[in-house]
Amino acid sequence: MKIIHKIPEMQKITKKLHSANKTIGLVPTMGALHGGHISLIQRARKENDCVIVSIFVNPTQFGPNEDYLRYPRPFNKDVRMCKKYGVNYVFAPTPKEMYDINHLSYVTVEKLSNILCGEFRQGHFRGVTTVVTKLFNITQPDRAYFGEKDYQQLMIIQKMVNDLNFPVKIIPCPTIRENDGLALSSRNLCLSKNERIRAGKIYRILLRVKKLFHEKKLLSADKIVNYIKNEIRRVPGLRIQYVKICNSKTLDEIKGKLYSPARILIAVWDGKTRLIDNIEI
Amino acid sequence: MKIIHKIPEMQKITKKLHSANKTIGLVPTMGALHGGHISLIQRARKENDCVIVSIFVNPTQFGPNEDYLRYPRPFNKDVRMCKKYGVNYVFAPTPKEMYDINHLSYVTVEKLSNILCGEFRQGHFRGVTTVVTKLFNITQPDRAYFGEKDYQQLMIIQKMVNDLNFPVKIIPCPTIRENDGLALSSRNLCLSKNERIRAGKIYRILLRVKKLFHEKKLLSADKIVNYIKNEIRRVPGLRIQYVKICNSKTLDEIKGKLYSPARILIAVWDGKTRLIDNIEI
Repeated sequence: MKIIHKIPEMQKITKKLHSANKTIGLVPTMGALHGGHISLIQRARKENDCVIVSIFVNPTQFGPNEDYLRYPRPFNKDVRMCKKYGVNYVFAPTPKEMYDINHLSYVTVEKLSNILCGEFRQGHFRGVTTVVTKLFNITQPDRAYFGEKDYQQLMIIQKMVNDLNFPVKIIPCPTIRENDGLALSSRNLCLSKNERIRAGKIYRILLRVKKLFHEKKLLSADKIVNYIKNEIRRVPGLRIQYVKICNSKTLDEIKGKLYSPARILIAVWDGKTRLIDNIEI
Repeated sequence: MKIIHKIPEMQKITKKLHSANKTIGLVPTMGALHGGHISLIQRARKENDCVIVSIFVNPTQFGPNEDYLRYPRPFNKDVRMCKKYGVNYVFAPTPKEMYDINHLSYVTVEKLSNILCGEFRQGHFRGVTTVVTKLFNITQPDRAYFGEKDYQQLMIIQKMVNDLNFPVKIIPCPTIRENDGLALSSRNLCLSKNERIRAGKIYRILLRVKKLFHEKKLLSADKIVNYIKNEIRRVPGLRIQYVKICNSKTLDEIKGKLYSPARILIAVWDGKTRLIDNIEI
C-alpha cells in the first residue's frame, strides 16, 4: 500500500491504471475510519482491481462555527486499517494541496443542497460536491462508494454525477450500526458516556415508528413526524434539529398521506455533537 | 469519421481509447465552424491520436433575450469540414440529451464570471463552465483547445481546470482574423454588408492604440481606454458595451499606469450583433 500526498502523483498513477485496463474503486473519507468505512472498502475491494481511500477533512464543507478543528484525525490508525483491508492507495492531501489560496471554482446542486441538513449547514453541500468533483478528477474512479447514513449527501452526489456526466458509478452502501442501533459515525468519538447511551435511542425510535406504520397504526407523514418528535423530546439531553419524511428519490418533503418510496430523515443534537440518521419506511 | 449523438456511446468510445493508450484532443464548438475552429482542429490533429469535435449550441449559456434561436446551425457543412480536416468523432447531442428536465447541477468560477462579458451576460459563464465540465466528463480529453478570441472564457476554463483538477491540458490558440483584422466568429454570419465593413475597424483601432503605447505616446490605462472609446464612437453604427484593460492572468482591471502582462478587452454592438475582441499590449 502506498500513501500519496500530492495531486499530480495520484493523477499519474490513476492514468497508468486506466491504460493498463485496471478498474478503480474510490472510497472518499474524512478519516477516523470505522466499521461503516470498512464495509465500503470491502465492497470496493470485491468489485475493483485497485482500491483508493481518500482521507481528507475537507475545510470547505464545515461552517465557520462547526467542528472542523475538533474533527478526529487518527491518521496512523486509519492507515493501518486501510492496509489491513487491502487498500492499494491512501490519498491524503493537505488542505493547501487541495485548495489554491485563490480558489474560485465550485460545484453546486441546487434545491437538494438547501433542504434538510443544507438548511442548517449553509454551504456544506457545496463544499461536499466541490471536493468530490476534485477527488473524482484526481482519482478517476470507475466506482465510488458512499454510505446511506449520509443519505442526502448520497442523493446529491448521485444527482451531480447524472447531471454532469461523471464517468463513475455511485455505489450506495447500507448504514452500519452499533449493537444498540446507533449509526456508525466518526463523530461518535466525540460523545461522552451518557451522550453515547442516549444516542442509541434515536434509531430505536425510528424502528418503532416504522413498525407502527406497517401495522397501520400511524399512517400520515405528519403523525409519524410528531410521534418521533415527542419520543425524542422525552430523552433528556437530545435536541431535535429536524425530522422530515421525504420521497427517497427526489427528497421532496411528504406531507399528509404517506406514499412509496419514503424515507425518514433526522438530525439531533446530543450535547455538542450533531447526529444524523435515516430509515426507509 | 463517426457522428455520435448519445452520451453513453461517446463515453464508451473514449473509455476504450484510453485503455488502448490513445490520447484524445477535444475541440468544443457551437458549430458554424470557421477558420478559427479549423486552426484548433489542426492543432489537435497534430498533438493527439484521436480528435473529437463537439457541436452543441448550449442553451444554458444564452440569456433569455439573447440569440440562442438565431444562432447559426449549418450542421451538414460543419460535418463536411470536420471530415476534411481529419476529425475522428463529431459529438453532436441534442439539448434534451445534455440537460435533464430536472437539471440542478452547475459549475461556477466566482469573481471571474461576473466581470467584463459576465457583467452584461448574467449566467453566461456558469452555462459555459457547466457545459465544458459535461463535455470533459463525456469525452475525457487529454487536451482541449480554446481560441484566445474568447479570452475571458479561456481564463475561466483554465481556472476551473486548475481549481477542480480536471486531468486535461488546456491549449490556448491564437485568434484567427479576416484580412481587414476582424476576429473570426460564428456570429459574423449575422452581419449585414455595412455592419461587416465597420466591424473590421475594431481590431484596427486596437492595433493603433498598441502602437501608440509602444511609442510611449499613450501610457496610462485610462488614456488608452478613452482613446479607444473615442475612436469607436466615431464609427457610426458601433456601440460600445465595454472597453477594459486587465491583467492578462488574473483579469484584474488595470487603472492608471500600465503594467505587464496586460490585455485590452472590448465588446461592441454592431447592429443587433455583439462582437468581442482582445489584444495583448
